[in-house]
Amino acid sequence: MINKLVKKIEENKAPIVVGLDPMLSYIPEHIKDAAYKEYGETLAGAAEAIWQFNKGIIDATYDIIPAVKPQIAMYEQFGIEGLIAFKKTVDYCKEKDLVVIGDIKRGDIGSTSAAYATGHLGKVQVGSKSHYGFDEDFITVNPYLGSDGVLPFIDVCKEENKGLFILVKTSNPSSGEFQDKLVDGRPLYELVGEKVAEWGELHMGESYSYIGAVVGATYPEMGKILRKLMPKTYILVPGYGAQGGKAEDLVHYFNKDGLGAIVNSSRGIIAAYTQDAYKNYGPTAFADASRQAVIDMREDIMGALSK
Amino acid sequence: MINKLVKKIEENKAPIVVGLDPMLSYIPEHIKDAAYKEYGETLAGAAEAIWQFNKGIIDATYDIIPAVKPQIAMYEQFGIEGLIAFKKTVDYCKEKDLVVIGDIKRGDIGSTSAAYATGHLGKVQVGSKSHYGFDEDFITVNPYLGSDGVLPFIDVCKEENKGLFILVKTSNPSSGEFQDKLVDGRPLYELVGEKVAEWGELHMGESYSYIGAVVGATYPEMGKILRKLMPKTYILVPGYGAQGGKAEDLVHYFNKDGLGAIVNSSRGIIAAYTQDAYKNYGPTAFADASRQAVIDMREDIMGALSK
Repeated sequence: MINKLVKKIEENKAPIVVGLDPMLSYIPEHIKDAAYKEYGETLAGAAEAIWQFNKGIIDATYDIIPAVKPQIAMYEQFGIEGLIAFKKTVDYCKEKDLVVIGDIKRGDIGSTSAAYATGHLGKVQVGSKSHYGFDEDFITVNPYLGSDGVLPFIDVCKEENKGLFILVKTSNPSSGEFQDKLVDGRPLYELVGEKVAEWGELHMGESYSYIGAVVGATYPEMGKILRKLMPKTYILVPGYGAQGGKAEDLVHYFNKDGLGAIVNSSRGIIAAYTQDAYKNYGPTAFADASRQAVIDMREDIMGALSK
Repeated sequence: MINKLVKKIEENKAPIVVGLDPMLSYIPEHIKDAAYKEYGETLAGAAEAIWQFNKGIIDATYDIIPAVKPQIAMYEQFGIEGLIAFKKTVDYCKEKDLVVIGDIKRGDIGSTSAAYATGHLGKVQVGSKSHYGFDEDFITVNPYLGSDGVLPFIDVCKEENKGLFILVKTSNPSSGEFQDKLVDGRPLYELVGEKVAEWGELHMGESYSYIGAVVGATYPEMGKILRKLMPKTYILVPGYGAQGGKAEDLVHYFNKDGLGAIVNSSRGIIAAYTQDAYKNYGPTAFADASRQAVIDMREDIMGALSK
């Protein structure tokens, strides 16, 4: 799956992932009205609105992007109905041959991590049959519990040819509170980064490992160091755009081969029509605005990379 | 909710939480057979078996325990159907007036943590209506992202009079890999513990904070230190029994008032009938075996505490 991700990034000349993190406030009124008319102002109504919104954006962008990253929390907040919309979104994106990175940030003790890995990446055994639960291609994982909380995910990745992105340095303002603490003179995130590189050797693809890392665009100096510490690790970079990360800051997240990083944008793409730059599209053409935002983001990043 | 938890612990003289972490291998064949007969060897069949198994255990123990802790991963591995069984379990436990600790170990950047908090503890707005998603009483939270990943959970807890248990020192063998790293001569988990105590002041109950901590039974020396660092923090203690934690090790997790800690047992209770000590019950009386295991666990812990 890492090989497929790299190939699709090269084909599309777009080291970009679209974050499918739908807030109801991003969804045009006509979509919400139609959904509430059918299901009422219920969890099912919200889930239908999210699904229709996602479908519009996927249909308008799938041919120019390699991957999507649905953030499961945005679905889980609507309970079971929301998770049904998450599953529909994952399935539809896979139908469109997109690589699906489930942003689920799970992580627990061994047997529990194994259950999460089974549910999101693998197959669960029921009597003599086995079934996929959510079936994403990659998921994000929290490393706070250490190796025995991470290795069960890697075991399932090996069986399924799937991958992980493990949190190393997150994009949020207070990520430094614990992640930047100095251990023998070096920040904790560097130790986690080294561990990710080590775990990565357990499951290598052609040029990169199936085991990637999350490093926020908002900390470019740290990104530069982590790039060198984890040369064969693909870096998933959140925080571009709305969170403040700029294209020129992202250059050092990439290797000399022009690969090694994939930049996420959520709000900047999916809610493009609400921004000044794209407001002429209007809410009915929200998906076209998203497509244009993808094209502009690609140009912004590829421009910075070619300098 | 922390006041209710303390009150129920005192009434039952049982600082015990039953971990509802059903593996299919724990479930008696007659329950699985009936479920597969109705739904086939499908995800729905597995979910039905889990639900019937849980219901049996809850019915047999609810009058002698204060709380349950369903581990969501064990449900999530069966996809949507599994999560429906999780929700049914939460709802049924609340009907039985049990305090429900959702062991979900979520944690993300601010807006995403807010969505998880909404989905698991609070109400989500859909048009003019608002709805609960999963509606647990407490949830477990991962602190790796720092304050702005934790505070949105506390905001919802304040609105709903609900609480958290934040991971400080986990029970698994490799928890020390990052959690024990020395920062200015002190292990990281102590820094996290101090932060939990600080966050706890934002949402105090009568004698304890709504914001608790998770500290594994498998590290009693660390538990002793953390108890002192977080005097008003309720400690959720996993790792008793099957993972190796013993009652005499747990004494220092409690305060002088005999309160301040609640000990989880999962496999030791729910799969009691598979163990030598309770095998005379047999699979059809699995729930009675669980009840006896609760009584024995209570005696073990209360005995150690009274020494």
